[in-house]
Amino acid sequence: MAEFNETIHQPVRLRIMAALVALEPSDEVDFTYLRDLLGVTDGNLGAHLYKLEGAGYIAINKTFIERKPRTYVAATAEGRKAFQEHVAALESILKGE
Amino acid sequence: MAEFNETIHQPVRLRIMAALVALEPSDEVDFTYLRDLLGVTDGNLGAHLYKLEGAGYIAINKTFIERKPRTYVAATAEGRKAFQEHVAALESILKGE
Repeated sequence: MAEFNETIHQPVRLRIMAALVALEPSDEVDFTYLRDLLGVTDGNLGAHLYKLEGAGYIAINKTFIERKPRTYVAATAEGRKAFQEHVAALESILKGE
Repeated sequence: MAEFNETIHQPVRLRIMAALVALEPSDEVDFTYLRDLLGVTDGNLGAHLYKLEGAGYIAINKTFIERKPRTYVAATAEGRKAFQEHVAALESILKGE
């Protein structure tokens, strides 16, 4: 059976990973885009991103654009793999396997 | 969008509900069967069943068979509905909707 992933299962993180994995591997999203998509606060999103980064599932890229700080987020190859495995584990559970 | 259900999303409870919803509406399962299926302790399973019962998602039937206490568990109609809605919400998320 595919591996059920407690880190990814948490609702906000599941939605973050689903949004990132849907992108092309080389694409990243803006912090504020994710925050508005998920309807969470800056602090809440930051905490979940920190957890996902710690697990090696996302890469966070902080930069400046026109002197303003911007944060971009992308799924890593490891994060994509863990997400796909978690989805497979979920599907097994939901089918009652 | 279908309703994401925090009570059902918890991993052990998701597996309990999936197992119960897979049965015929009139069927129930033995506590020990569920415990062994999920590989959890009596105390852990009891706590999750209590939470699901409190939400109205399962019915718990305590009885005696040959003077030994037995506990049976079944999904309620409300529980089946909440589970199906949660699965639909999960599917939307996993598709990146």
